[in-house]
Amino acid sequence: MKERALIERLLAPLAAHPAARGLMSDTAVLAPPIGRDLVFTHDVLAAGVHYLPGDPPSDIAWKLLAVNLSDLAATGARPVGVLMGLGLSDAENDGWLEAFGGGLKRVLELWDVALLGGDTVRGLDRAVLGLTAIGQVEAGKALSRTGARAGDGLWVTGTIGDAGLGLTIARGEAQPDKALLNRYRRPEPRLAFGQGLVGLASAALDVSDGLLIDAERLARASGVGVRIELGAVPLSDAAAARTGRNDEDLLARATAGDDYELLFAAPASAELEALAVRCKLRLTRVGEVVEGGGLEVRGLGGGRVTPARLGYEH
Amino acid sequence: MKERALIERLLAPLAAHPAARGLMSDTAVLAPPIGRDLVFTHDVLAAGVHYLPGDPPSDIAWKLLAVNLSDLAATGARPVGVLMGLGLSDAENDGWLEAFGGGLKRVLELWDVALLGGDTVRGLDRAVLGLTAIGQVEAGKALSRTGARAGDGLWVTGTIGDAGLGLTIARGEAQPDKALLNRYRRPEPRLAFGQGLVGLASAALDVSDGLLIDAERLARASGVGVRIELGAVPLSDAAAARTGRNDEDLLARATAGDDYELLFAAPASAELEALAVRCKLRLTRVGEVVEGGGLEVRGLGGGRVTPARLGYEH
Repeated sequence: MKERALIERLLAPLAAHPAARGLMSDTAVLAPPIGRDLVFTHDVLAAGVHYLPGDPPSDIAWKLLAVNLSDLAATGARPVGVLMGLGLSDAENDGWLEAFGGGLKRVLELWDVALLGGDTVRGLDRAVLGLTAIGQVEAGKALSRTGARAGDGLWVTGTIGDAGLGLTIARGEAQPDKALLNRYRRPEPRLAFGQGLVGLASAALDVSDGLLIDAERLARASGVGVRIELGAVPLSDAAAARTGRNDEDLLARATAGDDYELLFAAPASAELEALAVRCKLRLTRVGEVVEGGGLEVRGLGGGRVTPARLGYEH
Repeated sequence: MKERALIERLLAPLAAHPAARGLMSDTAVLAPPIGRDLVFTHDVLAAGVHYLPGDPPSDIAWKLLAVNLSDLAATGARPVGVLMGLGLSDAENDGWLEAFGGGLKRVLELWDVALLGGDTVRGLDRAVLGLTAIGQVEAGKALSRTGARAGDGLWVTGTIGDAGLGLTIARGEAQPDKALLNRYRRPEPRLAFGQGLVGLASAALDVSDGLLIDAERLARASGVGVRIELGAVPLSDAAAARTGRNDEDLLARATAGDDYELLFAAPASAELEALAVRCKLRLTRVGEVVEGGGLEVRGLGGGRVTPARLGYEH
């Protein structure tokens, strides 16, 4: 499929937003909402690095959008639109592109996001897919990694470690489990929860590289310390069944990454509990923000644990 | 260089804009200017496709920014900031990255653009560089490919075909010429001219794939026809010296692409002439907008010419 056919057949139908100008131009023109700040993020997924070449194309589209929307969610922003840079190899044949386009259509609708524009390149050795997501948030209210205060609780949504187990399943290294595999291939950006965090959280980010390393980043950016209790790390039933009740196994879950849950600092409050109920999300206090700096990990026995690694280091 | 070192040493110093949040977050937060529309574009450059792997890294940074700013220029927008997705292979070693970062710094300053964020990926087979550029334009005034009217002149800035000749030089297929080579490696986005076109032009785009194919796109998007006189296509002295005064050679110049000049429809006016003088840019009427549809090319003898190809088809 040539670029023109790809755009006209697969992408233009997804670009109904007037800002996209029907993908007839190289540019999108957006009238920004009054009283809102715009939030931008750009993440790249490469075949063989961020997903397996054999993953279903519709799941790759899902993940490409989800990982970027997860960044928006961590700021409290509502998604507006995306621009996409599709670098494609011969492996992305017409069947692949049709499936990718179909999956993209579904997730754009699911999360109410407009395709605004982008670019395609053929002839690469492997697919390299970039996406810029644009969101909006009340002016001056965007959450960031900075701002955590000693005394805040450290909280995480959902469950941790499922995607890491899902990856081992996708690689054929572990017994199949549909739920765990889906957590790897189809992460759920916590958009509604993130929007609800505005005004409640002092700092937030999404867990992409591992709970521990992302907690350490939040601490560093905020100029505080964080303490995490391994015993508090929330596991799904499927993950719990594959996790021994020991520090080593819990560390494996807390350093696997690809969770796309929100990790944030906030005082405990009734509003926070109500938000979790409203979003039907498990909410767990995994530790706390403390004076000083750095990350402290407490094991099941209550003593300090020194992890060999904190997560995925680029 | 690991991602953290790459960001902290090379990229964070370029991200002085408050919206970039020092690249400490995954997101940039921008307070949009009042009374302005935002313009977005995303172009991808791949090693071996859009540039030669041996091109100087600072020139690759130049081109990555320039091709995107050229799209903004065609809408009349002023650049605000960029997000960058750097997919890197082993060939982009520390020396390459330092040179790329240095070149990027210079062009960001040259065109007064802020680095707002992005992502890096290592371990690819070749570099794939994506960039999203954000611009601003008076609300409702952005130029597009649509809107050309029969009777408008069809105009182009600068000279056409230099970059195509520069590419043959870069490949070692033609006698060296610094000026032509520079036109291939360091295109100049016509930002000031584009901003001046708002209110003067009925439709505009930038010449990236070839004068003829881009003229055909403007015609199609506007629902009109365009007629181009090959004899009017403006050539630099260096290009003229390598171009026979015949239709075949002129067609080669008009279909080579990578010019990044502005092609637009507008009635002749004193303001237009004054704009060209102010921007120190050659301005040439290469044809006109006519009733009907499609592209008509007139040769030196005045008769219709049927080109074998119109430009670079993706």
